[in-house]
Amino acid sequence: MVRAVEPHFPRALRAPGAPRGFALEFEEPLPLACGRNLSPFTIAYQTYGELNRARSNAVLVCHALSGDQFVAGKHPMTGRTGWWEAMIGSGKPIDTERYFVLCPNVIGGCMGSTGPADTNPATGKPYALNFPVVTIADMMRAEALLLDVLGIEKLLCVTGGSMGGMQVLQWAAAYPDRVASAMPIATAARHTAQNIALHEIGRQAIMADGNWRGGRYLEKNVRPERGLAIARMVGHISYLSEEALARKFGRSLQHRNALSFAFEPDFQVESYLHHQGTTFAERFDANSYLYITRAMDYFDLAADHGGDLKNAFRKVTARFLVVSFTSDWLFPTSENRAIAEALREAGAKVEFHEIVSHRGHDAFLLDEPQLFSQVRNFLGSVAAQQGIA
Amino acid sequence: MVRAVEPHFPRALRAPGAPRGFALEFEEPLPLACGRNLSPFTIAYQTYGELNRARSNAVLVCHALSGDQFVAGKHPMTGRTGWWEAMIGSGKPIDTERYFVLCPNVIGGCMGSTGPADTNPATGKPYALNFPVVTIADMMRAEALLLDVLGIEKLLCVTGGSMGGMQVLQWAAAYPDRVASAMPIATAARHTAQNIALHEIGRQAIMADGNWRGGRYLEKNVRPERGLAIARMVGHISYLSEEALARKFGRSLQHRNALSFAFEPDFQVESYLHHQGTTFAERFDANSYLYITRAMDYFDLAADHGGDLKNAFRKVTARFLVVSFTSDWLFPTSENRAIAEALREAGAKVEFHEIVSHRGHDAFLLDEPQLFSQVRNFLGSVAAQQGIA
Repeated sequence: MVRAVEPHFPRALRAPGAPRGFALEFEEPLPLACGRNLSPFTIAYQTYGELNRARSNAVLVCHALSGDQFVAGKHPMTGRTGWWEAMIGSGKPIDTERYFVLCPNVIGGCMGSTGPADTNPATGKPYALNFPVVTIADMMRAEALLLDVLGIEKLLCVTGGSMGGMQVLQWAAAYPDRVASAMPIATAARHTAQNIALHEIGRQAIMADGNWRGGRYLEKNVRPERGLAIARMVGHISYLSEEALARKFGRSLQHRNALSFAFEPDFQVESYLHHQGTTFAERFDANSYLYITRAMDYFDLAADHGGDLKNAFRKVTARFLVVSFTSDWLFPTSENRAIAEALREAGAKVEFHEIVSHRGHDAFLLDEPQLFSQVRNFLGSVAAQQGIA
Repeated sequence: MVRAVEPHFPRALRAPGAPRGFALEFEEPLPLACGRNLSPFTIAYQTYGELNRARSNAVLVCHALSGDQFVAGKHPMTGRTGWWEAMIGSGKPIDTERYFVLCPNVIGGCMGSTGPADTNPATGKPYALNFPVVTIADMMRAEALLLDVLGIEKLLCVTGGSMGGMQVLQWAAAYPDRVASAMPIATAARHTAQNIALHEIGRQAIMADGNWRGGRYLEKNVRPERGLAIARMVGHISYLSEEALARKFGRSLQHRNALSFAFEPDFQVESYLHHQGTTFAERFDANSYLYITRAMDYFDLAADHGGDLKNAFRKVTARFLVVSFTSDWLFPTSENRAIAEALREAGAKVEFHEIVSHRGHDAFLLDEPQLFSQVRNFLGSVAAQQGIA
């Protein structure tokens, strides 16, 4: 039993006129890697463009840690544009005149898909830490059910960057017959020790916040915003390269011609981090941050396939475009190249491109003409092969 | 007026039999960059080896952010060995049979030199945030006064890594007649935007801790240990390279054969960070962490000399050995090379070595045979030139 429901957002909408997208509630339990089931569960999603009659022009876009289903256009909660506005839309590399773009919010998230802020039917209170620890594979299992309901048997393409790229790899490995092409960008087939360490600092900052209350902050009507802001600051440093920070801020001072000899932000880079942290804490759920970072840390596609990544791709028939950026130290070229090599060894068709950029991991979200042209050409070629007008 | 006092340590001594070093209290006010004076002020220090009759064999060792004056032997507070045990001692690269090693605790620190945990004579309570924001130059000004009292007119060498290296550069620039040689290691002439950003996260974690109490935690008999531990975790990630973390921990699990699907540490790298954070919080003062990181962030030797680093070194007569490590991303080779180049342009004699190491910034503290032989040879050559037996 599946029914359409109103998407539920965690905070007041700043752009109430913007499209709110869709949500489906599934009664059937979702089996999870931890051994538990999630029931009921909801997947919120947004779509762009139109599904053709053959239902063959669907592009599944997978969002990153702090992203959501609103990839383009005005975001209903923040009033700003979507996170992949430069990539998706009419005439853009993923052209919504030609393709039907579908982006679901991940299970564990906080923009309408079931997560730790939602009500636990067993208690009538928010799940908080009673929410099961979910994995990337769990998220993709839920999304496969969504595609079933939407009648999409096979995706033209699945794409995403960062954690979105992990989902792409998981999707291609778990549902090889359901995807004609895949574009994992700035990602890895497993989270490294350094990345786990960075996430753990964010989680510790959230859990150390006095307002976290063992995760039950919603019941107490408080929010661990300071801890969540610190977690986001750690993230931001890892998303930018040293060079990007140097170019953007250097040692420039904020609102002052001299040092303050105090502990308020003196440097622009400090003010930038504070701003990023504060605005994120206003729109994101702290427990969701714990769950989604844990899902990324747990991701290890090779370990799930006998310790050899190429085994994960044995049944792959999809064509792949793998992209990395030179200054990305969170998901460096070496990790992306390892994906491309494993795919090749498994017999898949794969293009690999390393794009020169000083912008670090964030490059995949920014105006990167080389990325745009590669995505446009790859997708166009796949679409032509699949007979899509 | 200067008098010898008993060094004051922040916590109970775990190795009460270990040498406690020395401390001198100065009544004369120390003028600071912020415009205030510090009075009285104490400098705690430790010495190794013997000062020769000519007082010409003194090597000033400058400690890093989390270090202190106990460079070698058993540390009185932790019971562990000093932070540069591999470098300093009888027969070691900085040979205490030949050289007199002197290491002061920096002003703003918490191992006996005056810092924010000490009593503010104006209020009779701990300074906390009423302690003035001090700079690297302020720290060196205090140490020059210490050398005056000890009757050391000219140092054979001044050396240190990381923040210790900043002190070396400041010392050579501010007191060019008082130093025959200098070895700045794994350091920079200014803190970069990325490094400021990492420090700001640590400071925010401390100040967000409910026990911080606006900095007045000592009066309330509590300590912001959780925030300080998070700050230390951020530091540790930056001290190790991605490769070092991958080699040391990879994705190895802690005490378990399977994932826990919970938020306790699953991965060894998480447990390692927790351990590093907790043990640091037991021995270090949180406000000192704020003050010392601020001093590092403020450091910009070129800015203090009309924006051109070579101007800082115009009067330098010392010979320099500058060392960097390939995998150090906190103080990368580019920053160290810039120091060597500015020195050369200013007419100084300088050797520059980049050592291949996968260990990241921490390499300067570890068993690195190339570093040891370079330090030994350089120092031996300087000593011979200065006529030291």
